[in-house]
Amino acid sequence: MAETDPETQIDRRQRTAWIAADWGTTSLRCWAMAADGTPLDAAQSGDGMGSLAPEDFEPALLRLISDWLPPDGAGPVQVVICGMAGARQGWIEAPYSAVPCPPVGASLARAAANDPRIAVGIVPGLSQARPADVMRGEETQIAGLLAARPGFDGVVCLPGTHTKWAHVSAGEVVSFQTCMTGEIFALLAVRSVLRHALPGEEIDLPAFLAAVSDAMTAPQALAARLFGIRAESLLHGLPAPTARGRLSGLLIGQELAGTKPYWLGREVIIIGAPGLSALYAQALGTVGVAAEAAETTRLTLAGLAAARAVAAGGGAA
Amino acid sequence: MAETDPETQIDRRQRTAWIAADWGTTSLRCWAMAADGTPLDAAQSGDGMGSLAPEDFEPALLRLISDWLPPDGAGPVQVVICGMAGARQGWIEAPYSAVPCPPVGASLARAAANDPRIAVGIVPGLSQARPADVMRGEETQIAGLLAARPGFDGVVCLPGTHTKWAHVSAGEVVSFQTCMTGEIFALLAVRSVLRHALPGEEIDLPAFLAAVSDAMTAPQALAARLFGIRAESLLHGLPAPTARGRLSGLLIGQELAGTKPYWLGREVIIIGAPGLSALYAQALGTVGVAAEAAETTRLTLAGLAAARAVAAGGGAA
Repeated sequence: MAETDPETQIDRRQRTAWIAADWGTTSLRCWAMAADGTPLDAAQSGDGMGSLAPEDFEPALLRLISDWLPPDGAGPVQVVICGMAGARQGWIEAPYSAVPCPPVGASLARAAANDPRIAVGIVPGLSQARPADVMRGEETQIAGLLAARPGFDGVVCLPGTHTKWAHVSAGEVVSFQTCMTGEIFALLAVRSVLRHALPGEEIDLPAFLAAVSDAMTAPQALAARLFGIRAESLLHGLPAPTARGRLSGLLIGQELAGTKPYWLGREVIIIGAPGLSALYAQALGTVGVAAEAAETTRLTLAGLAAARAVAAGGGAA
Repeated sequence: MAETDPETQIDRRQRTAWIAADWGTTSLRCWAMAADGTPLDAAQSGDGMGSLAPEDFEPALLRLISDWLPPDGAGPVQVVICGMAGARQGWIEAPYSAVPCPPVGASLARAAANDPRIAVGIVPGLSQARPADVMRGEETQIAGLLAARPGFDGVVCLPGTHTKWAHVSAGEVVSFQTCMTGEIFALLAVRSVLRHALPGEEIDLPAFLAAVSDAMTAPQALAARLFGIRAESLLHGLPAPTARGRLSGLLIGQELAGTKPYWLGREVIIIGAPGLSALYAQALGTVGVAAEAAETTRLTLAGLAAARAVAAGGGAA
């Protein structure tokens, strides 16, 4: 049997101490990790939790990581996963930890795998009883932030489909709040009557900032101002980047009006995709908050390393 | 040729003075009308403007009304249409009338038809320059209301996909405002993460009213309260009718907060589907507004009759 086994692959197998994974609703991202926490290799696919049946979870993971695994009989490699893999419809439900608590203080949920080369652990999400709220995945990025800045006392804003605002103090998530802003934007931009008004991806920044201000001043006017985008497009030829900027600004501005108890007078760090994070930073700038943006992948990996250390009894910080 | 020609059909042909039609994005409804404004027969289909190509407009109409048409050579029957048939993507664009103006004061837009048995006229919609707004179809129902109550001075609320609030005085629409509430509800209920929380159609009225009150008090909290429905469903088993009532109440409550300049201290008449109109009436009741609900089809027919009379030079009221 002539098996190709290039040197780099041997290297990687020898040096891969564990595997990190971020498994969301729409994508799966994996990293081969060295013992010191350095990523050696990365792979990703569109096999999100939302598109897989339970029997597909392990094959979807193996498709990305099998090159990194040791030969049979060498003992399993630990795979540490954050995100929707731990949801009720995920690989195995990882019970939430209730805040206030450290972001990754609980033990990992063990997911059954048929392949003896892997041992799969899933990071539990966080819950809050009142007001009811949940997160899965973002707790790991917060843990990554705390690994770099153990004494951080402030607010973490994690923009995305469901944007999270978390108050972090003394190594714990004290409270948090989720806003459906990103999902509402996507539904309105793609599926509502507004789609006719905003082809393309470009956002006009002055229009965005003006809409942020409008929405913060009169958040109750949202449903009317949204239709106004369609009407101005029909009657006055509103340019698409202006329309898109206004839609984004109205929604983010209303979110800022609603999350004022979080960001007012606190240090704010934004963790998210660069483009969206920049919009949040610009919007926060209009109310005098100088938010700092952090690099997401690095924090995810540091958080997964922290979760692994906690699970091994190494302590949270 | 043995053509079946039952007596009722002959009767209908002889007595059909004109044909009324309400052609929206998702459906087409037609009525054979007697000269005195009595509907003689009705037909409807799912051939909405949104699903038809331009060459399909006339065939879709003829499928519903051909039984009502006179024999060839008897001269055309007038078909008066309101709704999206007059939009830019409709049969022919009927230019908007700018408010303030009577709801159906302008002449009908003539749509070209190949069949010599019909003469098609489309009722123009209304526009407002600032704040930019448009309506197509609702102006006809407002005209129907004014036909019954020429001196009406107050506000007409027309709940639907795009809910309209119109200030009506001295026989004219003075100003109006459109809220995307219905479309946002449908997108969230069917396509967002909230769909898991609210199977079924039942709405819990106390939950609806509590959410109306919450949203009016703190409209800026919408995006967070929406996600709270999902979180309470996951954590505390929120019953689906409660979740659905809360979603509807949050959106309608925010709309009421935004349309306060319309309904405050004015007589309010609601024109819309019975279930949704009842919810709006209940919501308005919580802020001391005793809104009256009107029967939609009757007003549509009265409005189309008024539009026909205006076009024939008979005057608006």
